[in-house]
Amino acid sequence: MGLELDSLFHPKSIAVAGASASPEKQGHNYFKNLLDSFHGKVYPINFRAEEVLGVPTYKSVRDIPENVDYVISAIPNLEILDLVDACIAKKARVLHLYTARFSETGFERETKLEQEVLRRARASGMRILGPNCMGLYYPREGIAWGNGFPKEVGKVGAISQSGGNGSEIITGGANRGLRFSKVISYGNALDLNEADLMEYLADDPETDIIGGYIEGVRVGPRFVRALRYATARKPVALLKGGRTQAGTHMVSSHTASLAGSREVWEAMCRQTGVINTNSMEELVDMLVAFSRMPPARGFNVLVGGGAGGKSVLSADECEEEGLRVEPIPADARQELTSRDPFFGSWVTNPVDGSIMGGSRLSPHEVVTLIASSPAYDVVINNITTGRPGGGATTRQSRTTQMIEHTAGIARNFSKPVALVLPDMIPEDEQMLQSTQEMRERCIKEGFAIFPSMSRAARAVRRLVGYHRWLAEAKEEATPKAAASGGRGPALH
Amino acid sequence: MGLELDSLFHPKSIAVAGASASPEKQGHNYFKNLLDSFHGKVYPINFRAEEVLGVPTYKSVRDIPENVDYVISAIPNLEILDLVDACIAKKARVLHLYTARFSETGFERETKLEQEVLRRARASGMRILGPNCMGLYYPREGIAWGNGFPKEVGKVGAISQSGGNGSEIITGGANRGLRFSKVISYGNALDLNEADLMEYLADDPETDIIGGYIEGVRVGPRFVRALRYATARKPVALLKGGRTQAGTHMVSSHTASLAGSREVWEAMCRQTGVINTNSMEELVDMLVAFSRMPPARGFNVLVGGGAGGKSVLSADECEEEGLRVEPIPADARQELTSRDPFFGSWVTNPVDGSIMGGSRLSPHEVVTLIASSPAYDVVINNITTGRPGGGATTRQSRTTQMIEHTAGIARNFSKPVALVLPDMIPEDEQMLQSTQEMRERCIKEGFAIFPSMSRAARAVRRLVGYHRWLAEAKEEATPKAAASGGRGPALH
Repeated sequence: MGLELDSLFHPKSIAVAGASASPEKQGHNYFKNLLDSFHGKVYPINFRAEEVLGVPTYKSVRDIPENVDYVISAIPNLEILDLVDACIAKKARVLHLYTARFSETGFERETKLEQEVLRRARASGMRILGPNCMGLYYPREGIAWGNGFPKEVGKVGAISQSGGNGSEIITGGANRGLRFSKVISYGNALDLNEADLMEYLADDPETDIIGGYIEGVRVGPRFVRALRYATARKPVALLKGGRTQAGTHMVSSHTASLAGSREVWEAMCRQTGVINTNSMEELVDMLVAFSRMPPARGFNVLVGGGAGGKSVLSADECEEEGLRVEPIPADARQELTSRDPFFGSWVTNPVDGSIMGGSRLSPHEVVTLIASSPAYDVVINNITTGRPGGGATTRQSRTTQMIEHTAGIARNFSKPVALVLPDMIPEDEQMLQSTQEMRERCIKEGFAIFPSMSRAARAVRRLVGYHRWLAEAKEEATPKAAASGGRGPALH
Repeated sequence: MGLELDSLFHPKSIAVAGASASPEKQGHNYFKNLLDSFHGKVYPINFRAEEVLGVPTYKSVRDIPENVDYVISAIPNLEILDLVDACIAKKARVLHLYTARFSETGFERETKLEQEVLRRARASGMRILGPNCMGLYYPREGIAWGNGFPKEVGKVGAISQSGGNGSEIITGGANRGLRFSKVISYGNALDLNEADLMEYLADDPETDIIGGYIEGVRVGPRFVRALRYATARKPVALLKGGRTQAGTHMVSSHTASLAGSREVWEAMCRQTGVINTNSMEELVDMLVAFSRMPPARGFNVLVGGGAGGKSVLSADECEEEGLRVEPIPADARQELTSRDPFFGSWVTNPVDGSIMGGSRLSPHEVVTLIASSPAYDVVINNITTGRPGGGATTRQSRTTQMIEHTAGIARNFSKPVALVLPDMIPEDEQMLQSTQEMRERCIKEGFAIFPSMSRAARAVRRLVGYHRWLAEAKEEATPKAAASGGRGPALH
């Protein structure tokens, strides 16, 4: 369905119009990243400089001796029509316009210019990505718009009308262990739009999970079909920009999008099984949950690793987010009291490790013992930095132990586990190092990490909701699928 | 009203029962912190060690040659009655029980033991703080339970049933520029309870703003009176632990509190003008807003410093939190277009600085010009790290400029300003240093900083709500106050 786009994103050669020697310019970043990592040929286009980063330039795309598959434009909008013609002459399959200031300005001249770009591209068959966008991040092909993006390849794919929000998905996700198949920033969606790109990621064998930031839907009914098609194959989490009056106004001056009604968007997400998030944080949370947690099918949660008041608030936050913090079941309670009558009958869910001093049971043993009960569907463990007492070393070894024990729970009981690891700005270099080590350890163990209990709880609730929706949708679809000879996707 | 407690917290001498040489023990922390900072006499009590940190110990409080004003207990619960008797013999005014495992265990023996402690204390007139609590942080007196607490004095006072949450108020607040008059962790509230401590902070001239984490209300009607009394004098923000079924269960095993109904709590907050928060983050946010922002009286907000998609989401998040992101008024628009017709008529609220490249106007000028309009009550500025392009130095100087310009807005237009400064774990030591410098700069300039737009917007909305409530309450109270001879507090 969407794989016709695939060839666009596997160019043998790329030209950067506006490749610049100045690190302040985005035309520099595009060219430098390609020079460092892209496997094919790269041509810098610059009519002022003789060379950029040691590579001789061409004055125009027309001067490139061969044809070129993919062109990135970082030149001013007033020069764009000439570039479009040059790209068509050189048989480019796609022109990515980082170039902005078209219809999003709201001005007549710029809007007409954009339409003329589209008209010429359509007449020739060349596709346009953008304008007004960061374009393609495709680590397998060595294509990236940002300097610090991971070079490793992963299974998360995303589309974003905003380049900044696309960058936040990539860097925010990377900090929590995510790696990407491709992330496509598509700006004004003049030609390639949300439906094209959603269909593409739905069919893309390199993508297992889809995220997206969308400001306006250009092709409503087709996008709904694309979403149904996608959610039948892989989880999809989206964030809508322009949910309020002020947001709608802003969307129009950012990507010239019509934000549309919030109610319609929400209904569309419900009907298609899309996880509808409310912030960039929540969007990345869902990509983390889908990437790093096995299917969770029930809302009963065991919470560990808090202490005192934090345990109380963890209980409140989990229940307020829609999870059930179920009391310890009778058989687990019996086992606990048989091993330590005092603490065994005192301890509860959430497990407050701070009361266990002097017990024959360690907090880890208590959590592990309770976690083995089929009464719990999911475990969320707080990575605490310990009580105010205790030196940094003790705290760290306590934390390392906790991570090991939690990894054991995930492994031995095949339970979905989430870790809460707060974002704390370290006070000094030693703390920076230990914070980074702890984070890397959690990521290496494969954990989904969240910066707060309430965000972990919300993501887990949505994860469970998705897997339940999927199971129901498949059940409903089965008779139909059988009637039509078993062909066709469950939700399509 | 509450000042009778004041003398309790100004001891001339403090004994630490269970003062320990081991940094793993809280009895060590208490003693070490007092030794470092307390102005009066400090006695370590330890019946095993001859000396602790070079100070000769006493085997019992009874062995201290003089009377002692204040005793901190970090000994096991089974030895507690003897200590109570010794404290009474030595005319201690208050015994703070860090010692735990009383009624919160739910066991009969421990509950009876707690009651016996209370009975003996009441009979003698000695007050009990706790049990099961971290006790007193009073930087002016050099008393602290945590090792990294600021030694500087401030105007924020807080009470917390949980020591961990009390620590989070202190350290989380300190990271954002807050300093404290006193923070009192009071655990099971056996004797000194939420009403005593609220009355005390209400009357305390060292305290301008009150925060609190409360699990259960022991003395309902008196606490309501205390809250009315307090909110008429200073802003009060509270967080309730035990809002759900699981939270209620946890509260009982943490501080033996009866959580009570959520509806009753919420009604109480509404009626008394208390800001009712839903998480530790929100509680600290309100202490930051009240400490570092002047009264804000309207919901119209100007948002600056975002870029592209971030501006769109900022608009949505502000409006969803109850602020109004009003369009740029006609006179400001006219001024903008007269100075730059292209960008002046394109730019909107939120001000998207990323579109301004090549303009005669800088983003700062645009924000400042619009901020001068009386149409806006509050300004929220994103401290962005800049576009993906640009080196670290450029980004930093851009940020420094932005902080300076924002400080100018706060100063010149006397407008409440909030800054959004995301919590990001730095990637390396250089980034750690620049992050810390930026944060310190913002704090030094007096800004209220929030880690996200939605948290800033929620705090601003509550700040406005409080000041409106206060103005209305004062208006209502005036005729009554006049009738009663002008005496009595506005809300009491």
